Amino acid sequence: MARGEPHPAIVRSFTRPPEWRMNPATGEWVIVAPERSARPMMPPEEPGPDQPPDYCPFCEGHEAETPPELLAVRTPGSTPNGPGWLVRAIPNSFPAVRSSGAAEPVSDGFYYRSNGVGRHELFIESAHHEKNLARLPVEQVQRVVQVWLARLREASRDPFLYYAQLFKNHGGDAGASVEHAHSQMIATPMIPIRMREELRYAAEYHQKHRRCVYCELLARELQAGERLVADVPGFQAFVAFAGRQPYESWILPTTHGCRMDRISAPEADQLGTLLSIVLRKMDTALGGPSYNLVFHSAPFHEAPSPSYHWHVEVLPRMTQLAGYEWGSGAHINPVRPEDAAEVLRDERA
Amino acid sequence: MARGEPHPAIVRSFTRPPEWRMNPATGEWVIVAPERSARPMMPPEEPGPDQPPDYCPFCEGHEAETPPELLAVRTPGSTPNGPGWLVRAIPNSFPAVRSSGAAEPVSDGFYYRSNGVGRHELFIESAHHEKNLARLPVEQVQRVVQVWLARLREASRDPFLYYAQLFKNHGGDAGASVEHAHSQMIATPMIPIRMREELRYAAEYHQKHRRCVYCELLARELQAGERLVADVPGFQAFVAFAGRQPYESWILPTTHGCRMDRISAPEADQLGTLLSIVLRKMDTALGGPSYNLVFHSAPFHEAPSPSYHWHVEVLPRMTQLAGYEWGSGAHINPVRPEDAAEVLRDERA
Repeated sequence: MARGEPHPAIVRSFTRPPEWRMNPATGEWVIVAPERSARPMMPPEEPGPDQPPDYCPFCEGHEAETPPELLAVRTPGSTPNGPGWLVRAIPNSFPAVRSSGAAEPVSDGFYYRSNGVGRHELFIESAHHEKNLARLPVEQVQRVVQVWLARLREASRDPFLYYAQLFKNHGGDAGASVEHAHSQMIATPMIPIRMREELRYAAEYHQKHRRCVYCELLARELQAGERLVADVPGFQAFVAFAGRQPYESWILPTTHGCRMDRISAPEADQLGTLLSIVLRKMDTALGGPSYNLVFHSAPFHEAPSPSYHWHVEVLPRMTQLAGYEWGSGAHINPVRPEDAAEVLRDERA
Repeated sequence: MARGEPHPAIVRSFTRPPEWRMNPATGEWVIVAPERSARPMMPPEEPGPDQPPDYCPFCEGHEAETPPELLAVRTPGSTPNGPGWLVRAIPNSFPAVRSSGAAEPVSDGFYYRSNGVGRHELFIESAHHEKNLARLPVEQVQRVVQVWLARLREASRDPFLYYAQLFKNHGGDAGASVEHAHSQMIATPMIPIRMREELRYAAEYHQKHRRCVYCELLARELQAGERLVADVPGFQAFVAFAGRQPYESWILPTTHGCRMDRISAPEADQLGTLLSIVLRKMDTALGGPSYNLVFHSAPFHEAPSPSYHWHVEVLPRMTQLAGYEWGSGAHINPVRPEDAAEVLRDERA
């Protein structure tokens, strides 16, 4: 509420647990999470009386301000939940989902809802108050990738979770409410609609052509060349042929694989290197834009898929999502992908 | 480009015509429209030497600054493209789509593209520099609705167009680049993915239950009562059970109909009245938020559908679309729909 005190109905619901609900007209699941309305902006717009203006609970030395860590990359001799860490995984204090155990859907035959089962974790990408993953050393980006993979693997062992959406919001235009560099994972019993559709489309393509659509895409991109951005052994980055956002770039493993969390440690380091290169190029060429990272990987508890190919989407957020996009699901991209690739190729990493 | 001069590759493409492209991994169509990168913000951040700081080409008296009008509600005796109008429809000067005639898809068997066929029209909702449809008199909102319907009907007669997405962006957070109150229509040969999915889901529901899912939804909402916001004869507004955005509200005609452009003039006036009520409630209760309006109606050139039910989505834009939403297609709504409805019901219209 932007005006005066919040309405009593809103205040009343702050303590309600999160809930899954299905849109009865489309089948889409939404998370209703009233607790999240109460989450602060960090750094706060108005710091508390005892807080310096640049107070940040994610910085080294403030470990007591966050929930206990789930995992940390630490310097030898340091102890959990104290200083001396390099990357830290913690539960999100304002989770979109939070219970454990099985989903318990209830329905009156028309409306469907369920308890808000899931894990919502937060990955602090630097001990110092660095805001942008793009500006961290490549070794640090590699450490972040290793933490992502470890937490994805941990989530994949939960029999009640079927999908983990790993993502990153950098900057206000990309939806970040915290300034300190961080990323997140929301693992859920539902396979989200966008993943279901990618899986379905890829399976249909495979049935028709006996080939993974992403393997074919990679071969065609390498042949065309005009949308390529950068590569390292085992990974290729290119601007998407029909990206929804200007400069939208994809990183694909060059060998077929459906699950990101199944890659080896050396592969993870290569991924960290290429991610760092792409983020640096965008940061310099586009003047430090807000951006999202989105990781798509096959669901847990399934046989390896010959049709799905895990990948990373790097999405600078330079245009607002407006009514046309909300209403139609179609997107208007004002920058030709081939031109975007030329800009990114020309930029030093 | 936020830094210095744009890259030559970007400048080169400003004059390229729009193009449809299909994402080869999902089947989604995207409009690549380089001309739109060149469109100005209005009012401009830095006015030209002869322009006052509040210069606006959409205000009465500046008709020569816009393309010739397609339609206008005018006072008796006034002449086209001069002063004396109340609502004005013009072609968008920076169209996302622009050619006429048939789509001409081309493919190499993997990538699909097409010339950017379509109409992109702009509706100026007030002759004076009013920024917000919510603050215009109800009679003026009714006039705007009549212009929308006339332009939808005109588009529906084009044999090469199959769908018209009518929408409104109000405020920067909703993607508006123009301050003066306006709405838009993008009519295309493609039926956008979100519409295709709504149509498919509704058809499946109808096949299973022999009933329109929206008619059933309306009956259930009226019975439950807890999400109702306001109504007029023939139309009901309620907060969506599983809205993607806080306070997301839908307006449905209470009698089944699949095409918005088929309603009568008195029905259009009732729709204008209810739309005005809902927008005023949101404007006051939420402190003048940015918002989108999205209109969903069955495609052109098809037999009347027993399963699809046209409707309006009113979407205040109070949360940023972040990585989770981009990656998963699932949404996190921090306000319980029943609480949102209580807030809106309590607010005067």
